[in-house]
Amino acid sequence: MPDDITTDTGSDPACRFREVRALTDVLTSRLSAEDQTPQSMTAASPTKWHRAHVTWFFEEFVLRRDRSYAVYDDSYRYLFNSYYEAVGKRHPRPDRGLVTRPGVDEIRRYREHVDAAMEAALTEGAFDDDAHELIELGCNHEQQHQELLLMDLKHLLSTVRLSPGPVYVDRDFDRPGPVEPLRWRSVGGGLVEVGADGDGFAYDNEGPRHRVFLEDFEIAERTVTNGEWLEFMADDGYRRPELWLSDGWAHIGQTGWSAPEYWQFDDGEWTTFTLSGRRPVVPDEPVLHVSFYEADAYARWAGARLPTEFEWETAAADVADRRGELLDPDRCHPRRAGSAMIGDVWEWTASAYLPYPGFVPANGAVGEYNGKFMSDQHVLRGASAVTPRGHERRTYRNFFPAESRWAFSGLRLAR
Amino acid sequence: MPDDITTDTGSDPACRFREVRALTDVLTSRLSAEDQTPQSMTAASPTKWHRAHVTWFFEEFVLRRDRSYAVYDDSYRYLFNSYYEAVGKRHPRPDRGLVTRPGVDEIRRYREHVDAAMEAALTEGAFDDDAHELIELGCNHEQQHQELLLMDLKHLLSTVRLSPGPVYVDRDFDRPGPVEPLRWRSVGGGLVEVGADGDGFAYDNEGPRHRVFLEDFEIAERTVTNGEWLEFMADDGYRRPELWLSDGWAHIGQTGWSAPEYWQFDDGEWTTFTLSGRRPVVPDEPVLHVSFYEADAYARWAGARLPTEFEWETAAADVADRRGELLDPDRCHPRRAGSAMIGDVWEWTASAYLPYPGFVPANGAVGEYNGKFMSDQHVLRGASAVTPRGHERRTYRNFFPAESRWAFSGLRLAR
Amino acid sequence: MPDDITTDTGSDPACRFREVRALTDVLTSRLSAEDQTPQSMTAASPTKWHRAHVTWFFEEFVLRRDRSYAVYDDSYRYLFNSYYEAVGKRHPRPDRGLVTRPGVDEIRRYREHVDAAMEAALTEGAFDDDAHELIELGCNHEQQHQELLLMDLKHLLSTVRLSPGPVYVDRDFDRPGPVEPLRWRSVGGGLVEVGADGDGFAYDNEGPRHRVFLEDFEIAERTVTNGEWLEFMADDGYRRPELWLSDGWAHIGQTGWSAPEYWQFDDGEWTTFTLSGRRPVVPDEPVLHVSFYEADAYARWAGARLPTEFEWETAAADVADRRGELLDPDRCHPRRAGSAMIGDVWEWTASAYLPYPGFVPANGAVGEYNGKFMSDQHVLRGASAVTPRGHERRTYRNFFPAESRWAFSGLRLAR
Amino acid sequence: MPDDITTDTGSDPACRFREVRALTDVLTSRLSAEDQTPQSMTAASPTKWHRAHVTWFFEEFVLRRDRSYAVYDDSYRYLFNSYYEAVGKRHPRPDRGLVTRPGVDEIRRYREHVDAAMEAALTEGAFDDDAHELIELGCNHEQQHQELLLMDLKHLLSTVRLSPGPVYVDRDFDRPGPVEPLRWRSVGGGLVEVGADGDGFAYDNEGPRHRVFLEDFEIAERTVTNGEWLEFMADDGYRRPELWLSDGWAHIGQTGWSAPEYWQFDDGEWTTFTLSGRRPVVPDEPVLHVSFYEADAYARWAGARLPTEFEWETAAADVADRRGELLDPDRCHPRRAGSAMIGDVWEWTASAYLPYPGFVPANGAVGEYNGKFMSDQHVLRGASAVTPRGHERRTYRNFFPAESRWAFSGLRLAR
Repeated sequence: MPDDITTDTGSDPACRFREVRALTDVLTSRLSAEDQTPQSMTAASPTKWHRAHVTWFFEEFVLRRDRSYAVYDDSYRYLFNSYYEAVGKRHPRPDRGLVTRPGVDEIRRYREHVDAAMEAALTEGAFDDDAHELIELGCNHEQQHQELLLMDLKHLLSTVRLSPGPVYVDRDFDRPGPVEPLRWRSVGGGLVEVGADGDGFAYDNEGPRHRVFLEDFEIAERTVTNGEWLEFMADDGYRRPELWLSDGWAHIGQTGWSAPEYWQFDDGEWTTFTLSGRRPVVPDEPVLHVSFYEADAYARWAGARLPTEFEWETAAADVADRRGELLDPDRCHPRRAGSAMIGDVWEWTASAYLPYPGFVPANGAVGEYNGKFMSDQHVLRGASAVTPRGHERRTYRNFFPAESRWAFSGLRLAR
Repeated sequence: MPDDITTDTGSDPACRFREVRALTDVLTSRLSAEDQTPQSMTAASPTKWHRAHVTWFFEEFVLRRDRSYAVYDDSYRYLFNSYYEAVGKRHPRPDRGLVTRPGVDEIRRYREHVDAAMEAALTEGAFDDDAHELIELGCNHEQQHQELLLMDLKHLLSTVRLSPGPVYVDRDFDRPGPVEPLRWRSVGGGLVEVGADGDGFAYDNEGPRHRVFLEDFEIAERTVTNGEWLEFMADDGYRRPELWLSDGWAHIGQTGWSAPEYWQFDDGEWTTFTLSGRRPVVPDEPVLHVSFYEADAYARWAGARLPTEFEWETAAADVADRRGELLDPDRCHPRRAGSAMIGDVWEWTASAYLPYPGFVPANGAVGEYNGKFMSDQHVLRGASAVTPRGHERRTYRNFFPAESRWAFSGLRLAR
Repeated sequence: MPDDITTDTGSDPACRFREVRALTDVLTSRLSAEDQTPQSMTAASPTKWHRAHVTWFFEEFVLRRDRSYAVYDDSYRYLFNSYYEAVGKRHPRPDRGLVTRPGVDEIRRYREHVDAAMEAALTEGAFDDDAHELIELGCNHEQQHQELLLMDLKHLLSTVRLSPGPVYVDRDFDRPGPVEPLRWRSVGGGLVEVGADGDGFAYDNEGPRHRVFLEDFEIAERTVTNGEWLEFMADDGYRRPELWLSDGWAHIGQTGWSAPEYWQFDDGEWTTFTLSGRRPVVPDEPVLHVSFYEADAYARWAGARLPTEFEWETAAADVADRRGELLDPDRCHPRRAGSAMIGDVWEWTASAYLPYPGFVPANGAVGEYNGKFMSDQHVLRGASAVTPRGHERRTYRNFFPAESRWAFSGLRLAR
Repeated sequence: MPDDITTDTGSDPACRFREVRALTDVLTSRLSAEDQTPQSMTAASPTKWHRAHVTWFFEEFVLRRDRSYAVYDDSYRYLFNSYYEAVGKRHPRPDRGLVTRPGVDEIRRYREHVDAAMEAALTEGAFDDDAHELIELGCNHEQQHQELLLMDLKHLLSTVRLSPGPVYVDRDFDRPGPVEPLRWRSVGGGLVEVGADGDGFAYDNEGPRHRVFLEDFEIAERTVTNGEWLEFMADDGYRRPELWLSDGWAHIGQTGWSAPEYWQFDDGEWTTFTLSGRRPVVPDEPVLHVSFYEADAYARWAGARLPTEFEWETAAADVADRRGELLDPDRCHPRRAGSAMIGDVWEWTASAYLPYPGFVPANGAVGEYNGKFMSDQHVLRGASAVTPRGHERRTYRNFFPAESRWAFSGLRLAR
């Protein structure tokens, strides 16, 4: 079954746990204590907070099921709970960057404490089935935070307006060969099934699997590129209200957006900030860091539209065995736009983030994981060049508010 | 065909035009110049602005098609254009209440000028088919603004915290008999057709008619009442985060909401502001002026959910010949919650306001009427006690942001 | 004694009361109900609110001393109290423009009711000395509000960006002859007395009279003109941080100020909004509607400074018998900048608004009239073309926050 | 001359430079990289920013006078300029906590680089008189930032609401003996001289020395204590509008203040956050961290007033040889309120922060040091328990906005 190619859920839980935890350490090993401390906007979090929070997740939802477990530090429940109302009061989200203690060394010790307890129990086979499900959830949770950590870090490092700015991955810039011209693929509609089928891990928001009716449609074979986006800009795309949703146009009035996030026009050329510092915009790469409003406006300008999430999921079945760029800690940036639908960039869809028919959140505090965010957010599908390998799925529903740009978000056209 | 019972689209266009215009005059005849001038929030507009704007709509989109038409006042295009980017610059929306000139008498003269030109052309048969379509749109537009005018007026009059406060309709308060106990009706799912079928007027956002797949479901026979809402409040409904969407809970934190809009607890009882002044909350009336967040939380508390807009439309077919309270200028308030699905209160659905498959906005500036608002709004279905008779439709899609409460909005449960 | 020339405090109290009240009616007689209703910013108030508030002042502080007085409407104490905490709760200041009832006719009746009660008691000689002092305060209070009413009206009428815009005084524009070149007058310092001497009415904030030590200084013979201000602008005055106080420069960054309030550059010339509509800026008129920040920056640019309020008061003694333009309801705009120090425009001083040594507020609620505003405001001296005749005084201390521009405020240099 | 007792300006410039620089290192030696990175509010700065900024001050204003000096890093001019418009563009102040690179080690190297260059030139006698004046200014500047650093650190550490919270100075809490009862001292007025006399270092804002006229007055022998403040609170001091300036009362409405900054009511007692963690409020210590509004309200409640800055300076002459607590890095907190006027806590005065007659800012960019802040700030006199020894002066004018509470600010009564 093609969707399995990179999903390691079949592997031993202890190995899986160890691998996921180790990747977080790899990702943060290049960062100083100073880099790991600030929070550049309310929606983002400090690196060291991510490291502690994903650890707390295992402590709170897995280890504390055993009454004999010795909690590492009672105050961490207050400091590192993200949004679980059922767990109790939390440190205010906008102030996460003001917590200097525990520092990075103490957080390392916290991770070691929890890892040791987890390893011991995993080795002893002390966990029941519910615990194993929560461990799998915790691993996916940590992978999700690996991507958030890199998104948040990129945003933070970009705030100092010096060139080339801070470098996270020190590597040469690509000069990818030319991208393929845009081609359309026809997909037949009718009554189709969508959603996770219960075979392998999925978040609760990916189910229940259910039927939807689709008209026939066409979908672009690749995502929109920087080169195409430059044409949109050259054609006054950011200055023509008829292309925009009303809220998007108002947002442009407030922000003055005239290009994707991180782009600047310096000395006659467009540059963008990457995790390898500021560099020229590469026309053959997929466009990155655009909002839903921009994606929607571009599609209208191009005489097309965004696909719905169900069109996307149906169309992706045909190329389910292909992967674009997924997280490579020595790269953290997409390559040339290709034919895979999973990888490179998250793709905005036309769908609002809503519960599937019959959706019931998980029991207990982890029921707050997804369901309570189902209003006024927009679904993105696929995966990006900072999504950890093994975390991507064809039924995965990512979601952000319409104006968000700090995710590695692009778009694919439909019609 | 039952849906026709109150829709007068078959009548003579001139009569239709005259009737609609006359109702606006009836509604505003009770208001002083002072009452018609202020704007109590950005989302609302002054009464006199509504009167001028609906008139400008006919002038701009119908009369100006004839080059020989003498525009009444060039500045009105700037002052009374609401949001049509294609028409040009507009007076800033938040400042509509600062426009004191033209005053109400001058706006009456403007209405007379436009009415005379319309009547002359209607009588002469000077309009082509496109114009007739735009006149029908203009009449529906004016009806929509009649409801907005009353919503905005209610909000304005409520701002002065004196009791009983200003009275718009001077009438006795009802003591309706007890409401029926809540009963559920089963509706079969499958592949159903939804949307306007092109027979009679509909807004562009009601089409194209298309197929959707529904599971079987049950729907409540009546809307939720004030009495039931008081139970929700007594059960700490506004203080239990597990009942709320995350954005809704944050909104409660910011606003301190603990009851529907306009409710106050005075001298041991709950009162609410109505267009007949402040009065006790009547348990057997449908609850009014709740936000999507509150409707959603109530449904969760009740062990149910909101219907999707397609469930609602499908369920409403069975009772399409019934009407709850529609606009009666001498009442402007719902009666006891009954069995009709159209009338009394607008009903929040679980659906985001999105384009139907194949949706294309109308040509020209009127294409901005609906389509550009299709993000981050929520669909309400039905109609309310301030919806003009003849404006209600089973396929009608009303929409507001999730936190809005000044519409006459309530809810009906599904499961 | 020169200061007496226009101060009518010697006249009969009943005449004085009648004259002041009549002027308010003259000023508002040209305004429609619509004009009198909105509030264009929190610091401003609707015309009809001013009319009611000054009436309430007599009712609250004079008539209610007599227990047998029949209060006109209990709710007016809530609606028309401005800021007297000792009187009780008030309608929120930012919402004054939302009060549509009472309307202008009802407020006229309220004025008549209070006037009749006042006249009866004045005729009967029913008032004691304390009451007479409060009546004198009430008359000055109403005069102060006459100026505020015109300031607020000008701001309101200016908000609609159409040309020439609404006209309050329909008159021809002046073409004044050329202004005198700037000349300096030397004033000797030493230990001088400042403040009101108790001879004639003064607000509590003008006393106690006390000694201050001044160095010798020079003061400009006239105020700064529009022509001079245009030179400041041409010399990049608004773009050179070294000329500005830090707060002022930050304010420019936020607001984008590049000219005085109400100025616009249209078709190659600067125009300004006046109570007679928009018209070209006249170089020989004193500059109007500048903030303290701008006045201070201009003075620095000119190699001079603003006078302190005590320098101003001392210098004004020499020309105390001269008056510039005071309120003429058929004009409401200054003439050519002349040699008088009282009239034409209020003049920003270098002084913060602070209590004089030994200052004690008046007893009772009227003690809130001035004293509680003595922080972070700046003193203006003189009077303006909308200050009612008889309200101006050499010791008068007007005050506004540093960024305020809607007063008729200009400046005079010192060094 | 008594004022000399702790002012080391007579010492060798190289020693002075070394001592000042060393104290900064002592103060920061206890802080981790994490502690030194965040900014808890716009008015505050990160510790590592302070360390770099005071270093940049010497580089920019002293070392760069020598064209042959090798600038350490060009970008530091952008990153570590605070507010000197004449120097050029700056990193936005609210984002100082987002600069993670340079980190603390790199900033240490920057300090070493600048120190070496300074030492070399000082040893060689390479500096001219102007340079020596700027070095003295730079040393005072660094001392001022030592106090700011501790204020900002205290604010930062207080943001995490855990008890006892982070500890900067690990020491036992005091149990000081009882404070003396409040006694008043009479001070004769008349024409007095105030301001710096040019003998020893002073900031430009302390001059020119000039004459002012004072009435006779009385001043309290000690500052207001926590115990007295608790009485004010018990007497509803924070709930009685008649005690407050209008702006202060509005501020209470917005903030809900009911006690000084950092105070909390936990388990039946008031605690306050200190640099040694949260601890009980000690009645005999001077009250700390009150705003001007609170100081003013307290004085009114006590039937007294705040002294003007000139009254304060005149009264302080009699006790000029006494010192309260000044900065002791192992303490950082005042002791029992005593008879000295310099030390323990900064004392709010009734004076606005305005230029003295004849004030001229210093030439060049350092002219921006003080003068441009002379609007809407309030003068504090004395010094505090975090003011470095040798930085305090009787003529010193500290200043903050009326609502500021994070300085070590208290008050002394006058009448």
